[in-house]
Amino acid sequence: MASRNIRLAVIPGDGIGPEVVAEGLKVLEAVAPASGLAFEQTTYDLGAARWHRTGEVLPDSVLDELRGQDAILLGAIGDPSVPSGTLERGLLLRTRFELDHYVNLRPVKLLPGAATPLANVAPEDIDMVVVREGTEGPYTGVGGVLRKGTEHEVATQESVNTAHGVERIIRYAFEQAAARPRRKLTLVHKDNVLTFAAGLYQRYLRQLAAEFPQVETDYCHVDAATMFFVNQPRRFDVIVTDNLFGDIITDLGAAVAGGIGLAASGNINPTGAAPSMFEPVHGSAPDIAGQGKADPTATILSVVMLLDHLGAAETARRVEQAVADDLLERPGLGARSTSQIGDAIAKRVSG
Amino acid sequence: MASRNIRLAVIPGDGIGPEVVAEGLKVLEAVAPASGLAFEQTTYDLGAARWHRTGEVLPDSVLDELRGQDAILLGAIGDPSVPSGTLERGLLLRTRFELDHYVNLRPVKLLPGAATPLANVAPEDIDMVVVREGTEGPYTGVGGVLRKGTEHEVATQESVNTAHGVERIIRYAFEQAAARPRRKLTLVHKDNVLTFAAGLYQRYLRQLAAEFPQVETDYCHVDAATMFFVNQPRRFDVIVTDNLFGDIITDLGAAVAGGIGLAASGNINPTGAAPSMFEPVHGSAPDIAGQGKADPTATILSVVMLLDHLGAAETARRVEQAVADDLLERPGLGARSTSQIGDAIAKRVSG
Ligand SMILES: CC(C)[C@H](C(=O)O)[C@@H](O)C(=O)O
Ligand SMILES: CC(C)[C@H](C(=O)O)[C@@H](O)C(=O)O
Repeated sequence: MASRNIRLAVIPGDGIGPEVVAEGLKVLEAVAPASGLAFEQTTYDLGAARWHRTGEVLPDSVLDELRGQDAILLGAIGDPSVPSGTLERGLLLRTRFELDHYVNLRPVKLLPGAATPLANVAPEDIDMVVVREGTEGPYTGVGGVLRKGTEHEVATQESVNTAHGVERIIRYAFEQAAARPRRKLTLVHKDNVLTFAAGLYQRYLRQLAAEFPQVETDYCHVDAATMFFVNQPRRFDVIVTDNLFGDIITDLGAAVAGGIGLAASGNINPTGAAPSMFEPVHGSAPDIAGQGKADPTATILSVVMLLDHLGAAETARRVEQAVADDLLERPGLGARSTSQIGDAIAKRVSG
Repeated sequence: MASRNIRLAVIPGDGIGPEVVAEGLKVLEAVAPASGLAFEQTTYDLGAARWHRTGEVLPDSVLDELRGQDAILLGAIGDPSVPSGTLERGLLLRTRFELDHYVNLRPVKLLPGAATPLANVAPEDIDMVVVREGTEGPYTGVGGVLRKGTEHEVATQESVNTAHGVERIIRYAFEQAAARPRRKLTLVHKDNVLTFAAGLYQRYLRQLAAEFPQVETDYCHVDAATMFFVNQPRRFDVIVTDNLFGDIITDLGAAVAGGIGLAASGNINPTGAAPSMFEPVHGSAPDIAGQGKADPTATILSVVMLLDHLGAAETARRVEQAVADDLLERPGLGARSTSQIGDAIAKRVSG
């Protein structure tokens, strides 16, 4: 069988990014031959080091090159030596916005063997998918500062929500919900306070519900949702929410599902007009960078999402199973280094 | 000793509001004689029933009467028969804004005997105070809708933050931190994305740190904060944050500290220019209203905050101790009704 060529852009980034990406690629290379895909990698040197060296965050020429790729694997972005937000907005958010990654897909699933901080929950209690909007809401950067630095300063920050943006994310969430056994979709927002923005979400939830009669819909305030994440996580199957609420609840979701070391995500452009980008939910963790202490599992599970996105579902399931098997053995093992975990999972998928 | 007269406005509100307020008042009446305070109550009929009857949410004349009171005790507001937000914004938020309740004070403390959903945490691990800004940020209602109901709708929601508003809430938080043993103040925001708003918070955190050299300051992204609430709650002592982030993390805080049935809050105007308002963090819970199932503890702990606010610290400690003692006995008791819990706590403070 001739294999399909995939141009894969790799952005290792800052902190633990390069370490975890190395393990993600190790696993990807181990399964590639059997997947029907051949990966042609280009590594992009972006992040704090480049900013210090050249002042560049994401040159237009690099963004154009990224557009020509089939998919992107990203490690982590951000470093305390760079003003907060410079790299996050200039590189990560800019990529999400320019490549129209309107779906930020974040599974929250407690795998057997994963250590949840919650008492009395079993894997079947936590199995949801958060569909976070990725290209508008409070993340637009719209707003400003008047009388900066004075005692009369006014700082505004605007959440911009469009019918175009809201319709497509809710539609995607309905499709996800329709494909899962429970078929339940919950809108998480704050409709008793943010009435303008939430009204738009509520309208499309109602409107699209008519197209997906098999999906049960529900609504939950974001504040209550955080409570239910820790005391009634079974409430949720698929969640659709805005960019900022999605950011918050998926970190919490990662924590309850075994920690940020396991949480994967996909920044997806479902139209295929631009490459989608896969990245662990965790940050660059500069405090443990370079020490082989980072858990590469979140990146390896992001590779699973990448494989699914590319249509290699069978291979994706094989990697997922290898991660699940590895997790089950963890409680009995001592501490392993980043590369030891990557080796162990790569070995399982090769075997 | 002549007792000080306190005009107390009581707003039982909707759902379980009247039931839990009755128990709060029962306990207040039991301790009043010894507190040096004499309460003169006026009950205000506000909420869903009034709205249905008269279309009124909070008439200006009632707001004016409230201004003339010394303090307010509120149960809960909101009912599914009223469009979401109508009562919350028209009554609850309007009162907070008009009476300039710029401090929304929410202790998050795991009392011995309280049932936390977290494994492996002890009471000493969860003992913080969230100082939530109460009069600006994303709660202003600023924003709007363009081309409503069409496929070209744009809905905006603006967070407005002023030097005046941010300086005073951060100052209050420093004062709280300085008075606690750990003396640690953490700003929770999202400074890598909401750069304008967070910049103002960061500036005053730095600026006021010079006035409070004994207080250690720290910063944490709101997404990471939700994670730390469940896996490293010891990180936090006093938290200062904006109106929306404070709303979210205090519900989560309530959940990890034993549930929403125990979480108290104060909407405080520290200048004394208008009465402060005390209320449980929970909502009106229409599903269990009128059944005697609601836990009145959150309201009773809100009465503790009211007593502290009025300077009756000794009495406040006595009620707090009675709640703590009651909580310790709960695991051994069967289900008790709302009034049985109120009776039990009232009996302890009378004894
Ligand atoms: C780094 C930051 C800008 C980013 C976000 O807020 O989206 C991160 O927290 C995430 O969740 O991917
Ligand atoms: C009812 C609602 C408007 C309110 C808020 O968002 O402030 C509530 O959630 C709270 O925390 O007091």
